[in-house]
Amino acid sequence: MKYIAGIDLGGTNIKTVIVNTDFKVVVSKSVPTPFQRPKEETFSVINHHVENLLQEGSIERKDLLGIGFGIPGLTDSRTNVAYNIPFLGWTNTNMAEPIRQYFGVPVFAENDGNVNALGEMHFGAGRGFEDILLITLGTGLGCGIITGGKLLHGASRVAAEAGHMVIEAGGDQCVCGKRGCFESCCSGTALTRYARRFAIEFSETSLMKETNGNLFAITGEMIQRGYDDGDLVCRKVIEVFSEKLSVGLVNLIDLFNPGIVIISGGVARLGDRVLTPTRRLVEASLMHPVQKCDIVQGQLDSNAGVMGACSLVAEGLNIPIK
Amino acid sequence: MKYIAGIDLGGTNIKTVIVNTDFKVVVSKSVPTPFQRPKEETFSVINHHVENLLQEGSIERKDLLGIGFGIPGLTDSRTNVAYNIPFLGWTNTNMAEPIRQYFGVPVFAENDGNVNALGEMHFGAGRGFEDILLITLGTGLGCGIITGGKLLHGASRVAAEAGHMVIEAGGDQCVCGKRGCFESCCSGTALTRYARRFAIEFSETSLMKETNGNLFAITGEMIQRGYDDGDLVCRKVIEVFSEKLSVGLVNLIDLFNPGIVIISGGVARLGDRVLTPTRRLVEASLMHPVQKCDIVQGQLDSNAGVMGACSLVAEGLNIPIK
Repeated sequence: MKYIAGIDLGGTNIKTVIVNTDFKVVVSKSVPTPFQRPKEETFSVINHHVENLLQEGSIERKDLLGIGFGIPGLTDSRTNVAYNIPFLGWTNTNMAEPIRQYFGVPVFAENDGNVNALGEMHFGAGRGFEDILLITLGTGLGCGIITGGKLLHGASRVAAEAGHMVIEAGGDQCVCGKRGCFESCCSGTALTRYARRFAIEFSETSLMKETNGNLFAITGEMIQRGYDDGDLVCRKVIEVFSEKLSVGLVNLIDLFNPGIVIISGGVARLGDRVLTPTRRLVEASLMHPVQKCDIVQGQLDSNAGVMGACSLVAEGLNIPIK
Repeated sequence: MKYIAGIDLGGTNIKTVIVNTDFKVVVSKSVPTPFQRPKEETFSVINHHVENLLQEGSIERKDLLGIGFGIPGLTDSRTNVAYNIPFLGWTNTNMAEPIRQYFGVPVFAENDGNVNALGEMHFGAGRGFEDILLITLGTGLGCGIITGGKLLHGASRVAAEAGHMVIEAGGDQCVCGKRGCFESCCSGTALTRYARRFAIEFSETSLMKETNGNLFAITGEMIQRGYDDGDLVCRKVIEVFSEKLSVGLVNLIDLFNPGIVIISGGVARLGDRVLTPTRRLVEASLMHPVQKCDIVQGQLDSNAGVMGACSLVAEGLNIPIK
């Protein structure tokens, strides 16, 4: 049997999976992402992490066919160069070479939003679709777009950046410096910001008790519990969030005409609490019924990235995915 | 010699061109678009228009290989069905069949934004590029997107609708019912609306004299003249318009990562008056220099549509475009 490794480099963890050529998971593990350490040290952590996982699965190095790598930043998948990885402070870094040298196998790097979209297309909610819009709502907002069965790459391979699409001129401040970006309106960060804002205005909320008044301790889970208990502030938070999400999604549906919209990331765990009002608002805003498409939660949750990374190897080495 | 006809159905005129298989224009003419007449009558006008043009060019019907047709509405180019043509009030109409029956040649229908993008790609400012974003600023805002050398079509073939991308929540009212759409912020209609608004606020403007105070008579040409003469209201109009245009363009550059952005339509005739500040603002708002691309005026002006329509026939019948 031969094997493929998929790595997902996140702000908190580096998640890795090893699958066989039937794409069944053999072993899977996460290690904490080294915080702003030298590149060499970070790559060493990644290489040892994969090495340990091979040992754990009793897999010999010679049976490893290749490694796929999801990168949280603008990445050219032809050259494996990441132009920027904001949270590591890295620019213009070849993300494959230090790993290729260590293992002696082909390494394929790609933007993490794209990798998530591939994961859901091959193994999750996107199976059977050729035109897929994936939005990841985590700390930030990630995006991957598949059109005609292929990733949308663009001229310099950095397309599908939906996070900084301005939807609300003069809206909430974004980390990018602009205001009213889709990310600053719709992300886990935006969700808890709305919760703080409404909790301050209307202090009669379970969020005050749950956080002992430290509103910066509000989590998605608290908002979810409050929503389910009929807390009016939590209801309002979800209502406003869904409105803004629907505006961004309608923009993207107009532009890409996807067959399915997949919402993943931490906020997606709110499920139909957010998706039901969002679907209603999107449908009411489309130009024509022919644009209508299902808006669903991702099926792979946090495994979309590593599985999509494995599919990069499949594509690069012509290994069929059944 | 064999020939191809290209038709561009516009709100004011139906423009038609006949080219030879070297894509040199033989004859070209416009007739007024029948205003909300029965479909049969409208198609009869189109067929006779093409017929007259063949006669004018001394071209026999048997030498006509096919007809391409640019449609101002959501159109599925696989079936030639236009889902909606707002200004004609038509829905779900096969745009090719009445023409095919009359001439007995293949007819290829496609959305007019897409057709404009094909025209500029094959014969104009987009030559040599595989990833092209075309924006037409006329009465409304049209869009065509080419990615990897192919039109972006989407799941039901109605992608690339950029006009109703919301960029300014609560902004100016759009004809579509939403507010702050790219079209309601950036089109010929928006340009003259800004001019009326600023003329009312600051009456010291050449626009008042040129229109005898009837601000609804303001034209793009008047704004251009005023701008060139240093009229402060006209300067302000162009400044605000360029700001909004840059917001929409940055959104689209983030999403599509084009190699070139082509601006066409009536407003494009303002040229560098609009494009110079727009380029500066876009460049300042990009996430990374790797996204940078030229923003240029279309080269074919109002011929992009008919030439793109001819290229539909070339693609459909495998006629090479050199």
